[in-house]
Amino acid sequence: MDMVKNEDIKIKLMPERSLHQIPVGSTGLSLADSLLPKGKEVLAVEVDGQVWDATRPLEDGQEVRLLTWEDKGGKHAFWHSSAHLLAQALERLYPGVKLGTGPAIERGFYYDVDFKGLSFDGNQLPAIEKMMLKLAKERNVFERKEISKKEAGTRLADKGMYKQEILAGLQDGQITLYEHGDFADLCAGPHLPHTGYIKSVKLTNVAGAYWRGDMNNPQLTRIYGISFPEKALLKEYLAMLEEAKKRDHRKIGKALGFFTFSEKVGLGLPLWLPKGTFIREKLSEMLRKIQEDQGYRFVTTPHIGHTNLYKTSGHYEKYKESSFRPITTPHEDETFMLKPMNCPHHCVIYQNRPHSYRDLPLRMAEFGTVYRYEKHGELHGLTRVRGFTQDDAHIFCKADQLKEEFSKIVDLILHILKMFDFEHYEAQISVRDTKNLDQYLGDDDAWEAAEQAIHEVVREKGLKAHVEEGEAAFYGPKLDFFIYDSLGRKWQLSTIQVDYQLPARFDLTYTTSTDEKKQPIMIHRALLGSIERFMAILLEHTAGKLPFWLAPEQVAVLPIATAHHAYARKVTEQLKDKGIRVRTDESNEKIGRKIRNTEVAKTPYMIVLGDKEMEKNTLAVRKQGHGSLGEMRVEDFLKMTDEARAKVKENPT
Amino acid sequence: MDMVKNEDIKIKLMPERSLHQIPVGSTGLSLADSLLPKGKEVLAVEVDGQVWDATRPLEDGQEVRLLTWEDKGGKHAFWHSSAHLLAQALERLYPGVKLGTGPAIERGFYYDVDFKGLSFDGNQLPAIEKMMLKLAKERNVFERKEISKKEAGTRLADKGMYKQEILAGLQDGQITLYEHGDFADLCAGPHLPHTGYIKSVKLTNVAGAYWRGDMNNPQLTRIYGISFPEKALLKEYLAMLEEAKKRDHRKIGKALGFFTFSEKVGLGLPLWLPKGTFIREKLSEMLRKIQEDQGYRFVTTPHIGHTNLYKTSGHYEKYKESSFRPITTPHEDETFMLKPMNCPHHCVIYQNRPHSYRDLPLRMAEFGTVYRYEKHGELHGLTRVRGFTQDDAHIFCKADQLKEEFSKIVDLILHILKMFDFEHYEAQISVRDTKNLDQYLGDDDAWEAAEQAIHEVVREKGLKAHVEEGEAAFYGPKLDFFIYDSLGRKWQLSTIQVDYQLPARFDLTYTTSTDEKKQPIMIHRALLGSIERFMAILLEHTAGKLPFWLAPEQVAVLPIATAHHAYARKVTEQLKDKGIRVRTDESNEKIGRKIRNTEVAKTPYMIVLGDKEMEKNTLAVRKQGHGSLGEMRVEDFLKMTDEARAKVKENPT
Repeated sequence: MDMVKNEDIKIKLMPERSLHQIPVGSTGLSLADSLLPKGKEVLAVEVDGQVWDATRPLEDGQEVRLLTWEDKGGKHAFWHSSAHLLAQALERLYPGVKLGTGPAIERGFYYDVDFKGLSFDGNQLPAIEKMMLKLAKERNVFERKEISKKEAGTRLADKGMYKQEILAGLQDGQITLYEHGDFADLCAGPHLPHTGYIKSVKLTNVAGAYWRGDMNNPQLTRIYGISFPEKALLKEYLAMLEEAKKRDHRKIGKALGFFTFSEKVGLGLPLWLPKGTFIREKLSEMLRKIQEDQGYRFVTTPHIGHTNLYKTSGHYEKYKESSFRPITTPHEDETFMLKPMNCPHHCVIYQNRPHSYRDLPLRMAEFGTVYRYEKHGELHGLTRVRGFTQDDAHIFCKADQLKEEFSKIVDLILHILKMFDFEHYEAQISVRDTKNLDQYLGDDDAWEAAEQAIHEVVREKGLKAHVEEGEAAFYGPKLDFFIYDSLGRKWQLSTIQVDYQLPARFDLTYTTSTDEKKQPIMIHRALLGSIERFMAILLEHTAGKLPFWLAPEQVAVLPIATAHHAYARKVTEQLKDKGIRVRTDESNEKIGRKIRNTEVAKTPYMIVLGDKEMEKNTLAVRKQGHGSLGEMRVEDFLKMTDEARAKVKENPT
Repeated sequence: MDMVKNEDIKIKLMPERSLHQIPVGSTGLSLADSLLPKGKEVLAVEVDGQVWDATRPLEDGQEVRLLTWEDKGGKHAFWHSSAHLLAQALERLYPGVKLGTGPAIERGFYYDVDFKGLSFDGNQLPAIEKMMLKLAKERNVFERKEISKKEAGTRLADKGMYKQEILAGLQDGQITLYEHGDFADLCAGPHLPHTGYIKSVKLTNVAGAYWRGDMNNPQLTRIYGISFPEKALLKEYLAMLEEAKKRDHRKIGKALGFFTFSEKVGLGLPLWLPKGTFIREKLSEMLRKIQEDQGYRFVTTPHIGHTNLYKTSGHYEKYKESSFRPITTPHEDETFMLKPMNCPHHCVIYQNRPHSYRDLPLRMAEFGTVYRYEKHGELHGLTRVRGFTQDDAHIFCKADQLKEEFSKIVDLILHILKMFDFEHYEAQISVRDTKNLDQYLGDDDAWEAAEQAIHEVVREKGLKAHVEEGEAAFYGPKLDFFIYDSLGRKWQLSTIQVDYQLPARFDLTYTTSTDEKKQPIMIHRALLGSIERFMAILLEHTAGKLPFWLAPEQVAVLPIATAHHAYARKVTEQLKDKGIRVRTDESNEKIGRKIRNTEVAKTPYMIVLGDKEMEKNTLAVRKQGHGSLGEMRVEDFLKMTDEARAKVKENPT
């Protein structure tokens, strides 16, 4: 790039796309001074799609995005720098310790180290944290140095075999070293301007990890940590962790008897117990109803398909190495695969008869159970499983119907978010990378129109949304929904994806009004995503306190003594007649114990019945987690539960 | 056996077990003269479990059962003899024809022959039938001859290579020849007393068949036929065939858009279209309700399981060679199998927590989709598929609960039979072979008690039942239900099986009231059997005219002209409000065509609306297949449909 000293350079600031003329030598850091609101610190910059140190001089013509703690790239630089700080502290406290690798991760960072026989256990973590904070206060600047392989070898001579091994695998001329204070590490960056940004640190866990993940190599000690730019954030985080532990859906699911796992049946394959099965059915019933009301038609397809089906769809190529292997049969010409997706089956159903433009849009839905292989270590409760049921649908439509279909799907999604009280959510629009348009399949005008339609729908519905350039699939743009649960954690839920590819691969057609053959557009769409994953989110969001309409047991009737059993049965029958799922506890337990058991079972309401209630023909009602609601008549209680059930009965449109 | 001439012998007549003293030399034929009612002919006899010619002399001490047209063994001898008659006719009409083999089959018989270049096509079947009947009238006696291999070789010298090849494979000293008139055949029998029994013959089909089923051998001509002891029976049979063709569920299922198959997805794997999916759901809903009312609790398990699970259950041994092969994974220690049965998964769920005697009986149900490999040639519509959904349940109970559980299950079955108007049905009790008691698993007293319990329940419910000795599974006795459809065809439906084996293999226990560990008994139970097979039976039984509550479209509203559209919409809304599935036909078709279309779609009711109905605010109602029901008010129509729906709402107990 042609640059003349002492002249200004021009950069384009993202995402605003505003042009700025700034002095040569300007960095993200200097740019931020004038641009960022007070209290917002720039941690790194994204330059033409790559994350850089905020201290690197910018160049003319670059697209620059300032990254703060709010951005993934900002957090990544922060935690990556924290990993270096951890390593520095370890070298200070354990002279002779040998370093492996230390990356930033989804939440925090770790460093793998070899203590070389030095005595170390988890009890020393607080001392290491203390050292890290002490070193952080030195505000040592992270310096980036491009060096030769030879120089790096000399510089890292006393670091031990691991760093030497990493260095050996690098290309001379592309090697960078990051130094801060007395610490140096082979590293591609990026990092914070200096260590002073790190205000609080918590080392969370210690585990064993083989060097380079290979069991034949030495085992290193992996120290996990997390760090923050403010002390208050750590406090919040620890409180959230504590609460999340209580709300772990695996724990709640077991305690409430919703589901279980068994190594005998196979890891990652949930077994749904009666109460869990009930909830699945209720969810399906609700989803079926709101979709049928919107003209969806349900189909049922097998859980396997001939290998040729997936060769046609392209899934064979995609899944063959990493997933369950094909199933052979005694008849040698045939091989089958566990269904990784429902779309190929739905394409075949579309093909089953000829279609005219009058049949479109055709909305085909299925609660389809699919199977995908995941490694043991990646399995986690219901959020990472090997078999799950998607609330899947495929809409076959004409190009001019795309916007309305998106709009209707968004209505369904908003209806569901409201039903489950997910108040905080956001949408992500994934569009093409405008610099690499040739990597996308399908007609350019069609893409343009589809992306436009999505933007319009998002605007018309007033959705909080951000656009991700280059995040579209190669076969079409998409609109994803993320929710924030009651602990502020972000989860992906619904997805809507345009697909220009499968209709072509399956040669799907419809006849136009002028009797021509044309290819329909396909929309893949899931509302909850997978029933399993949604159950996990819902249990963690509600801490197991399911909405009234979904609770397997809605009301517990608790007579105080045997004398009240007859009255309890009468009340129970009255509620049952109204379709309420009710249990009567005629055990010999004291009333306090009965109430406690029902609280633990998360039953939404309990009705306590004693002499007073029997005499006055009333109910003493308690709400789960809220205590007493006072005395009321059966009719009033029924009215209250009617309201609690009404939510699911509403129509989305 | 020791026998003195001119003395009587004693035989035991089955199934009465009555003892009879008869002259030496007596045969089934002579015995029948005194024992069978007039008009019943003995066709063969079962002697100590083997079927013999009715003309063979009986021996002292034998157990003898006289076989008539009502018996499978009787029909078998009849059709086997008809195959010989066909061969005789072919030799007469086509001198030089070479015979392959000619067995009796499920319905009728066939003979594989090599015409050796003689001109033959299907048009000659009537001439062959005529010749068969001519030869039958000669009343030629079937004579059984035990001959040496050498003698057989000479006797069959001019029969050609096929018979010589069969002969070569036989053991000298065990060779029998059957002769009637001028015809002789290598044959183990049994046969009719003479050809005169065969009163009517129909040759139904001609196909190609490789000699011994090997594609490297010459192709023979297979001629299929069926024959009867009375002319009227043939007429009935042909009428039934004609009707069955119309009622073929594959044809109806396609015409009504219920399901389809696709080679692309895989043979034998049904794809359920929206209407078919609707019916499945309605069936499941009904089955779920009646089972929940009887204390069943539903679970949901994956469609695969770790290979070790099936090693424990024993299914691995049973299915490994003949079924879908195990699924390997990128992680090499793990292999899975497509679930051939739900029981192993349910055993694992039972194991999930400790059980006390108070938890029993524990009734665990699932609509479980299982996968079993069948060869291409064995697949048939929905009756023989590779994936099907069982309405499965397993009941874990104590020995003293067995009878009551059987009784409750029978109630459920009878309820369902009534719901679908299956008026003709029978039960089969399968018990141990008392001569081989050591081949059965489990305690002798337990078996005795279980068989006793089944007998008692059958008696108490007044079921038409027969006992099959030796038909019990090695793991327990069972009770199966067979229905006869509207064409008189017999189908197996429900099954109830006691199992002493799986609880032992999975080491299932419960704690008794005296705090001991004991093994529960397991009952396998299916009501409809499989949803797929039941759909096939129901479609053939009803010719696609589903019961009102199950029909995807219950009512079609047909306005005669545009002037009646508004009124039609009003009526439609009134019906919809009452939960009726209704379609309005506002097309431009003439009313005659609208009615015809609706008849073809098998919609139970149609409502025709014209000037008269609009003025009087009434409906002209037509019932599918019955024509007009006259004019009525909406309320009256609703009352009528309420009654049609009531059937499914009743409680089985």
